[in-house]
Amino acid sequence: MDTKTFRRLGHELVDWIAEYRDRMGDLPVMSPLEPGDVKRLLPSQPPAKGEGLAGLTGDLDRVVLPGITHWNHPGFFAYFPSNSDLASVLADLACAGLGAQGMSWQTSPAATEVEEVVMDWLRQMLGLDAAFTGVIQDTASTSTFCALLCAREWSSAFGQARGGMQAEEAPLVVYASDQAHASVEKAALLAGFGRNNLRLIGTDDQHALRLDLLERAIQEDLAAGRRPCAMVAAIGTTATTAVDPLEGMGRLSADYGIWLHVDAAMAGTAMICPEARWMWKGIEEADSLVLNPHKWMGTGFDLSAYFTKDPEHLIRVMSTNPSYLHTDQDGQVKNLRDWGIPLGRRFRALKLWFLLKDQGVEGLQARIRRDLANAQWLKAQVEAAGGWELMAPVNLQTVCLRHVPAGVTDEDDLRAHNLAIQGRVNKGGRFYLTPSVLKGRQILRVSIGSAATELSDVEGLWKALLDAAAAV
Amino acid sequence: MDTKTFRRLGHELVDWIAEYRDRMGDLPVMSPLEPGDVKRLLPSQPPAKGEGLAGLTGDLDRVVLPGITHWNHPGFFAYFPSNSDLASVLADLACAGLGAQGMSWQTSPAATEVEEVVMDWLRQMLGLDAAFTGVIQDTASTSTFCALLCAREWSSAFGQARGGMQAEEAPLVVYASDQAHASVEKAALLAGFGRNNLRLIGTDDQHALRLDLLERAIQEDLAAGRRPCAMVAAIGTTATTAVDPLEGMGRLSADYGIWLHVDAAMAGTAMICPEARWMWKGIEEADSLVLNPHKWMGTGFDLSAYFTKDPEHLIRVMSTNPSYLHTDQDGQVKNLRDWGIPLGRRFRALKLWFLLKDQGVEGLQARIRRDLANAQWLKAQVEAAGGWELMAPVNLQTVCLRHVPAGVTDEDDLRAHNLAIQGRVNKGGRFYLTPSVLKGRQILRVSIGSAATELSDVEGLWKALLDAAAAV
Ligand SMILES: Cc1ncc(COP(=O)(O)O)c(C=O)c1O
Ligand SMILES: Cc1ncc(COP(=O)(O)O)c(C=O)c1O
Repeated sequence: MDTKTFRRLGHELVDWIAEYRDRMGDLPVMSPLEPGDVKRLLPSQPPAKGEGLAGLTGDLDRVVLPGITHWNHPGFFAYFPSNSDLASVLADLACAGLGAQGMSWQTSPAATEVEEVVMDWLRQMLGLDAAFTGVIQDTASTSTFCALLCAREWSSAFGQARGGMQAEEAPLVVYASDQAHASVEKAALLAGFGRNNLRLIGTDDQHALRLDLLERAIQEDLAAGRRPCAMVAAIGTTATTAVDPLEGMGRLSADYGIWLHVDAAMAGTAMICPEARWMWKGIEEADSLVLNPHKWMGTGFDLSAYFTKDPEHLIRVMSTNPSYLHTDQDGQVKNLRDWGIPLGRRFRALKLWFLLKDQGVEGLQARIRRDLANAQWLKAQVEAAGGWELMAPVNLQTVCLRHVPAGVTDEDDLRAHNLAIQGRVNKGGRFYLTPSVLKGRQILRVSIGSAATELSDVEGLWKALLDAAAAV
Repeated sequence: MDTKTFRRLGHELVDWIAEYRDRMGDLPVMSPLEPGDVKRLLPSQPPAKGEGLAGLTGDLDRVVLPGITHWNHPGFFAYFPSNSDLASVLADLACAGLGAQGMSWQTSPAATEVEEVVMDWLRQMLGLDAAFTGVIQDTASTSTFCALLCAREWSSAFGQARGGMQAEEAPLVVYASDQAHASVEKAALLAGFGRNNLRLIGTDDQHALRLDLLERAIQEDLAAGRRPCAMVAAIGTTATTAVDPLEGMGRLSADYGIWLHVDAAMAGTAMICPEARWMWKGIEEADSLVLNPHKWMGTGFDLSAYFTKDPEHLIRVMSTNPSYLHTDQDGQVKNLRDWGIPLGRRFRALKLWFLLKDQGVEGLQARIRRDLANAQWLKAQVEAAGGWELMAPVNLQTVCLRHVPAGVTDEDDLRAHNLAIQGRVNKGGRFYLTPSVLKGRQILRVSIGSAATELSDVEGLWKALLDAAAAV
């Protein structure tokens, strides 16, 4: 495409995005399409001849937009917030326009050095001490996978350089709570530990890992000749934002020589506010840590922040050094290909830079505090209303609740009833909730934190829940 | 950021990118900066107060641009082409503006279904039969890692559900050539095979894997009680675009029950042209295959295409199914979180869609053919010139050469001489070459394929090489 056409279409697309963002609140938040609806609109064969991109925004309106679930919508209360601030959209445009590939320092020094700087800004904003070094990964799933790979190589004295996991005599074991995100299980399985060597430890009535059970499991494994290798503390679980006992886990990590990884994928963003840092008291003891600026913070997906205390170890696990990748600066610089799984790298640091420059730390704090207050408001309504139950402590921006009609006690009935409420609310198109099962009980999970969500939207959702409960 | 500001800055940035692309040819292709030069321009602490993004393009000019190595530059002959066509830049902008997260079908049906459609277009364009299903991964490194994980679970009858790699009695072994990309070694080590169970098989004088040596290695492993698990065929090695004997490897794969993965990361793009398909004759026998549209094809980084014959198996290796990810459509749709390592997913398929719509298959073919012809032109010059040696067959767009001054035979001297030539050419700022060592010999690797590179640029490079050889 020539630059003249690019200018024209680029301006058109910028305006289209602005209009989309302006009218997003009027669109149904969850895509109403049925499977196959989008596919049907596209030819089954690739175009032989180029058609150009005139009509681009028309295609987006016709083919794409109806099939979008609007994560930035004020009525998005599903999963977790995944904000793409418009400052970050500009950064993604700059990244694509520059087309830089930051696998080595030399292949675009700015891509490496801006990342170093903004990841250090992020470290400071979170109140982390300077022992941590940050690097951008794509997702928390990948970050946690990197952590378990590092733990594995640590415990095996670099077994990958010899017989790998296949040569380990006594099995290495990974620990997390039964509320840990599925990515922990996935990472443990992919890293070769095997499900038999993954312990999902029971949780207390706040849904936090029970230290006594963890220590017992460690001791049982030791007694059986297995080797405790890694533990993952969730700071803010996915279902309820429960907080694992980090200080106690840090002690066990030190006592037994076990790698401590902290998964603060969603909650980590709140640590920008000093008053939230009680949640990760003891974080200094972590060996590695992940949080996702691509969730609540506002840098569009993907931008996951992985912090490690031992970058040399990470590099040793991840590096390869073939002749065709040598550069004159090796040894003096960071070659970020050696800090994760992929070789090539996009210039994602621009997203964090633009967002922070635009809003400043105080701007982000104000938004986080608004969301925390909105969650407390909803919590108060649930507590005050008859027939509604709060299902977990409201530590952050997630409120877990359910409706219990008078006289109904059967869990299957409650499950059907609450799913019916959810279905009705979602169908209305103004709000989007996703369900979850918490220790066998169906809950409705209200995850607040879309940047567009104001108190009035939370009020609207509460009214919709009340209406749905009355109607079903 | 409000939409009014976004419009203003977005238009400014679109124009800036257009200007950047127009004048790119006048900039030094490799960033001339020294380590620390970019870092120095940024404050060491995050901004407390938001400053807004006015002056955005000024910041890009001042802080970023000098630190960019211009991968889309007409004088970029380093590594491999990594074209970011402007149609793909528009797609990245749309992707960021929509802010969709395609982890499940329901979380944005269009993100899943457009990907299904365009990956099938790609399959057809490449002449692959319908037994292959495609999915987008970030990089070839990750795709090859997925392939080895799938092979591992195949050979171990799903060991990850039991004791993982730790419980395998007889070691599983991976085979590739000594010219395989470093990502194969990295994937084998990360997947837990261990370096002792990775065989890098010797290559012939065309730098292709020797089948006789491969079969001998397999038999030795079997005799020693080890279990051959996976083999990786390179179709287009990184150093020289050598072509492994795919048909023979397919036979061994069938005879011995070994997973066959094909790494066509760079060369795969050429398969759009039927006349290049001799390179992967026998591809139907592959179990999995990777090629990178983010290299030569023109979809900006990242967009790696992974094709598998057995999607059910991939899903079984990669899926987790916690209650908070259940949706009403499960079972009827693809949930792409189960097709790779990360949970969350960007809407990358837009890049392939926009590129193909804009240029059509014929447009891409014409560009590929131009590059192939340019490589043959350079090859002819090297063959005709005195004192220059062609170091490998020119199968595609990579020309490996060196200068041998009269009377010089010592490899160390030749190494220093050719590195001096390369240094001088790079320093000139118009061209960028990266070195490689091929079986102990220093080569100069000319990788043609930047979309902006015309024959006149290759002529210019050849003249610069001649001048440098005369001057050093
Ligand atoms: C606690 C926790 N960990 C990990 C993840 C996975 O995030 P990602 O999509 O970045 O892999 C999530 C979000 O879904 C999460 O809530
Ligand atoms: C043959 C081959 N395989 C794999 C790769 C790795 O590509 P990626 O950066 O997508 O991981 C490359 C490119 O560097 C390559 O040339």
